[in-house]
Amino acid sequence: MTARYFEGFSAGPQFGSGRIRVERKRIKSFASEFGPPPFHRGENVALASVFRGLATSGWYTAALTMRLLVESDLGPGGGIVGAGFDDFRQTLPVRPGDALRLMIEVLETGTSKSRLKQGVSNVQITALNQNNDPVQVFLGNPVRALPPYNL
Amino acid sequence: MTARYFEGFSAGPQFGSGRIRVERKRIKSFASEFGPPPFHRGENVALASVFRGLATSGWYTAALTMRLLVESDLGPGGGIVGAGFDDFRQTLPVRPGDALRLMIEVLETGTSKSRLKQGVSNVQITALNQNNDPVQVFLGNPVRALPPYNL
Repeated sequence: MTARYFEGFSAGPQFGSGRIRVERKRIKSFASEFGPPPFHRGENVALASVFRGLATSGWYTAALTMRLLVESDLGPGGGIVGAGFDDFRQTLPVRPGDALRLMIEVLETGTSKSRLKQGVSNVQITALNQNNDPVQVFLGNPVRALPPYNL
Repeated sequence: MTARYFEGFSAGPQFGSGRIRVERKRIKSFASEFGPPPFHRGENVALASVFRGLATSGWYTAALTMRLLVESDLGPGGGIVGAGFDDFRQTLPVRPGDALRLMIEVLETGTSKSRLKQGVSNVQITALNQNNDPVQVFLGNPVRALPPYNL
């Protein structure tokens, strides 16, 4: 992946990402740490729940999305800061063994009014499972592409 | 905390939560697992970044919020499922040592059209730090209150 600076962004193109596999053990340990309802932790409770089987808690799916985004082809040179987002929807349960990937569409770009060295993009980020069904969609609004740091 | 079933919800009242302390070590390990930019992982990079010091990645703050919400006074009997949300904004960096709590306001309630046993609420969830400054706000839209399961 080549680092892309703000000048390299424009509205229109789509970017992809790698895939990440959802692990049964991590679904449960994430749920234990962050405490969502028991149907994200125990197999029997999950079967009896609206999910009809073990599924990730929404924030775990969201955190996996972050990893895919940071490592995606979008790859701004200095990193991404998401100040907020809109229309966040999780449309299907995410199951153990699912393999997620992202489709990232840049809707518009501009320069931050308050911080002139930062690019601002509105991007639509869709997570798809291995059957190409969307499991999560949101609008990053804005996502800031930062200048690179000395590490 | 007494479990509250759907009949117990109405628009208007505010609910509170306990507090959770943000740990420096967990900020870094969460960032290492889910791979946000290096300024959520290393102290020197963080100092040179827009955050001017170590701060949580947004999804870590969000996951902590989930824990506070599940354990909050809102406490629906059968658990909460968040199908989506809107207007998610993180308004201030969250630092090591910060103590977060929630203010939860029920904006409207109703019964799910597709699943008659589930209550649906639109709630505004605000996370505040120890100085009572809002660090994160979003509209849960809808949050479903489920009937209780046999565990």
